[in-house]
Amino acid sequence: MVYLVGELSVRAGAEADFEAVVAELMREVRANEPEALLYQFAKARGRDGVYCVVESYASEAALEMHMAAPHLRAAMEKIAPLLTARPQIEKCDPVGAL
Amino acid sequence: MVYLVGELSVRAGAEADFEAVVAELMREVRANEPEALLYQFAKARGRDGVYCVVESYASEAALEMHMAAPHLRAAMEKIAPLLTARPQIEKCDPVGAL
Repeated sequence: MVYLVGELSVRAGAEADFEAVVAELMREVRANEPEALLYQFAKARGRDGVYCVVESYASEAALEMHMAAPHLRAAMEKIAPLLTARPQIEKCDPVGAL
Repeated sequence: MVYLVGELSVRAGAEADFEAVVAELMREVRANEPEALLYQFAKARGRDGVYCVVESYASEAALEMHMAAPHLRAAMEKIAPLLTARPQIEKCDPVGAL
């Protein structure tokens, strides 16, 4: 299993557009990627325009499949102009028993 | 539902002790907090001593119960001397359908 934890900063006024794109992306991932065990964007409390994303995949292959998925690429193209900086994404390996 | 996403920096050489404490804490949370839907520590790839934690709770009350839990307090006391800085914890509200 592998986890991805990320933080994204969205331009003021672009939050609604961003949330619409990632809501659709979450639907696509959940419908098409059975080994994506967790795929959730969430809005950080108290920090305007800051969102986190938490993802987990059953295997490295599942993560690679996600990274190559057309629905991800399409969403990233829509998201890029809405961001104030590159997303910060951390790949993490679970500690202890799962 | 509420998510917590955090990052912790562990002193060089203290990783094994840290992992043992959080492995036990994860067992305690999973055994005693049914509304803690996700509670996972993971080691960041490529960044020595950096760990992330991803947590989700079914309700605010479940998060408050977690924060007051004796097993959390006990673990934090063991972890504190192993860290190089205060943990950075972000509270986040999920976007879109769950």
